[in-house]
Amino acid sequence: MLHLTPNSSFSLTIRLEIPNRVGMLATVTKAIATSGGNFGQIDLIEQTRSVTTRDITVDAASTEHAETIVQAVKALPDIKVIDVYDRTFNLHRGGKISITSRIQLKSVSDLAMAYTPGVGRVCRAIAENPDDVYNFTIKRNTVAIVTDGSAVLGLGNLGAEASLPVMEGKAMLFKEFAGIDAFPICLATQDTDEIIRTVKNLAPVFGGVNLEDIAAPRCFEIERILREELDIPVFHDDQHGTAIVTLAALFNALKLVQKPMEKIRIVINGAGAAGVAIARLLKKAGAETILMCDSKGILSVNRTDLNEEKREFAVKAQGTLAGAIQGADVFIGVSAPGVLTPEMVRSMAKDSIVFAMANPIPEIQPELVSSDVAVMATGRSDYPNQINNVLAFPGVFRGALDCRAKSITTSMYLEAANAIASLVNPKDLSKEHIVPSVFDERVAGAVAAAVQRAARNEGIARS
Amino acid sequence: MLHLTPNSSFSLTIRLEIPNRVGMLATVTKAIATSGGNFGQIDLIEQTRSVTTRDITVDAASTEHAETIVQAVKALPDIKVIDVYDRTFNLHRGGKISITSRIQLKSVSDLAMAYTPGVGRVCRAIAENPDDVYNFTIKRNTVAIVTDGSAVLGLGNLGAEASLPVMEGKAMLFKEFAGIDAFPICLATQDTDEIIRTVKNLAPVFGGVNLEDIAAPRCFEIERILREELDIPVFHDDQHGTAIVTLAALFNALKLVQKPMEKIRIVINGAGAAGVAIARLLKKAGAETILMCDSKGILSVNRTDLNEEKREFAVKAQGTLAGAIQGADVFIGVSAPGVLTPEMVRSMAKDSIVFAMANPIPEIQPELVSSDVAVMATGRSDYPNQINNVLAFPGVFRGALDCRAKSITTSMYLEAANAIASLVNPKDLSKEHIVPSVFDERVAGAVAAAVQRAARNEGIARS
Repeated sequence: MLHLTPNSSFSLTIRLEIPNRVGMLATVTKAIATSGGNFGQIDLIEQTRSVTTRDITVDAASTEHAETIVQAVKALPDIKVIDVYDRTFNLHRGGKISITSRIQLKSVSDLAMAYTPGVGRVCRAIAENPDDVYNFTIKRNTVAIVTDGSAVLGLGNLGAEASLPVMEGKAMLFKEFAGIDAFPICLATQDTDEIIRTVKNLAPVFGGVNLEDIAAPRCFEIERILREELDIPVFHDDQHGTAIVTLAALFNALKLVQKPMEKIRIVINGAGAAGVAIARLLKKAGAETILMCDSKGILSVNRTDLNEEKREFAVKAQGTLAGAIQGADVFIGVSAPGVLTPEMVRSMAKDSIVFAMANPIPEIQPELVSSDVAVMATGRSDYPNQINNVLAFPGVFRGALDCRAKSITTSMYLEAANAIASLVNPKDLSKEHIVPSVFDERVAGAVAAAVQRAARNEGIARS
Repeated sequence: MLHLTPNSSFSLTIRLEIPNRVGMLATVTKAIATSGGNFGQIDLIEQTRSVTTRDITVDAASTEHAETIVQAVKALPDIKVIDVYDRTFNLHRGGKISITSRIQLKSVSDLAMAYTPGVGRVCRAIAENPDDVYNFTIKRNTVAIVTDGSAVLGLGNLGAEASLPVMEGKAMLFKEFAGIDAFPICLATQDTDEIIRTVKNLAPVFGGVNLEDIAAPRCFEIERILREELDIPVFHDDQHGTAIVTLAALFNALKLVQKPMEKIRIVINGAGAAGVAIARLLKKAGAETILMCDSKGILSVNRTDLNEEKREFAVKAQGTLAGAIQGADVFIGVSAPGVLTPEMVRSMAKDSIVFAMANPIPEIQPELVSSDVAVMATGRSDYPNQINNVLAFPGVFRGALDCRAKSITTSMYLEAANAIASLVNPKDLSKEHIVPSVFDERVAGAVAAAVQRAARNEGIARS
């Protein structure tokens, strides 16, 4: 079993009745610590002469681990477990976003202006001048988060309903990091044409479309056609968000090891949406030697099982990931837990760079190779160098909406990656700090400014 | 030209520089009053030794009237108009709703619970138990407000973009009156099948669908098929919301004139979505004699131009509205401005009831027949007895969502109408008070309770 660190995604609050005797709380905390739980808050709920009621918050490493911890506490004599409360599930109860009114509605006069009859004047104005939809409606700040639920996180095809918690989370991130109003659209179809038609039908309300968790290769065609047929920006975050942040991290990692982009050998493991987009963007950024692998090994011209996007990166070489990685300078994983072994990492060139970004469990646990690599990054928040799309997509859309860009382009991706990389001050740049924190408040603004600059240079800004 | 009262939908704020001399403000207010403007607030913005800057808020009756008022002020010597600011347009700037996060997102631990990796556990739970989508997502409190922009208010086919201000206003009403999160879906198609497919594709996120401003007869088929094929409630507010409130008003009006529903003769003018739904619901409520008219007169079995819904109400009689209304007890207009003349009203039976609900300009101005009718109602907020859908739809959806009703049924409409009517206390019931105020806070709760009761009686509640 892969080793995992306790983290807040498996956070419990255990409500206990503890007799008021010396050492009783200590027996509880000892039992939890011995089971490997990490303590959060300990709250006093109620105290009588004989009994104290406390809420103890504990991070576990998995559902099974959480159960082990609870059992260890239940086994203690005289301690009574009143309730075990899963903080993650509780936080999701009733959903994570809501719709609020931006103006008050307390009088007949408010109603007459915001709704009938006053609203009719605004409708007529938009009918006469369609561009006014950007002035007098939510369109200019509203993004559709569109999924078909076919590739939900790393969990696979869970369907529309089960993908909704992710899309709500994404909407929260849009709001928190860029002030954008985003709404989840989880579609009850996984048919490419049907998805395209539906999104086109929905477009009037939205200033942009963020495609999310749609399986490859379907996602490529959906994005391409929507980009052609809609006059609002369309962005597939799993592709381009990931590619932007990966490139930003690579820019800074290469500064540390002092290798130029043109000279390095890069292995990308995983040839789905993210892998293909990363490879494309790295090429635009000057990378010349990229070997891509999927679960069957190197994308070789000799293989007959490659889709169009994979063929774009097919090479004469053939073989396994283990073969491909020998002597490579950079490994970029957007694949599956544990597929990279310490031996493979040790076979890489000197000063190797490993981005093990499979989510939630990386291609290799960083602990296993910490002394063998120059730079290690993952997609996780509990290790250094988190390569997290949230560094990119809020600012990308903020920039695109603010200048009413017709589309989001490769030069915007490059500018955004440069902007993110540049926020790590050269004197702070280190093995454990190649990207800014997701809570660095400068990020979204810097990315938005870079995207706007690119839009104006390309002549696709409309305001 | 129809006489109109100044109202907030044409509200202006005029910023003026007025010399500091005795009587100068009086000349301004006199000019505005003489032009027929209604004063709102008068604010002092700045004052120097020689000049005072003021914001004067004025309600006008129309855009032209507003312009007349501004010109009258501009014509005054020594008064300088700095700015004229249309309050309705200004209030709509940037749209009227926004998406907010229900939980905070300030730390890595918040992110790990609300987004990856923690959210993955919630997704998996829903994939394993689909019903959990009602527990851990926004679905249970979220309604889609779906339109194709083909019948926007009384303004006609303005298209999707131009309909958005109405749908945003509706979303505000859902939130304000029933705490429901509603989101506007304005479709770039007016094809019946395409609308149906799109709404079905969208359904996973929503706990209910409110159809809005879709032209008849298309709206009937869309509603019927969606009701058959979706497992969430579908409600066409222009039909059923209007019908519920009309019936509630009629219940109370009939109490005043002491006529029984079974005995009265009702003329409905307008055989679109609202007219048909009103006629159907009045029948369910016991009405036996209904004559329906459209712009070509009585729906007669001899006519060959009737669609299916109109044929449902076709009678042997034929003729014009003027003929139909002679001796009628009740006129219900959901048609067009000014089509009812004082002569027609005077030809009705004793103690006649007139609901002139065309929006924003009624079939007849109430002033013209105030002494000729027993009860008069309109759709306007600036006259007594406003028949406003907001009395129905928030509570209807609140009730349906709370008990997870599979659909919204005719017995719910009847119960809702009874609930609304019953909120007018018998001792307060009067010619000018047959429905509760839209700001009566009891309404949504009473309607929701009635809808839930009906759902349980019919066995279609799921929680």
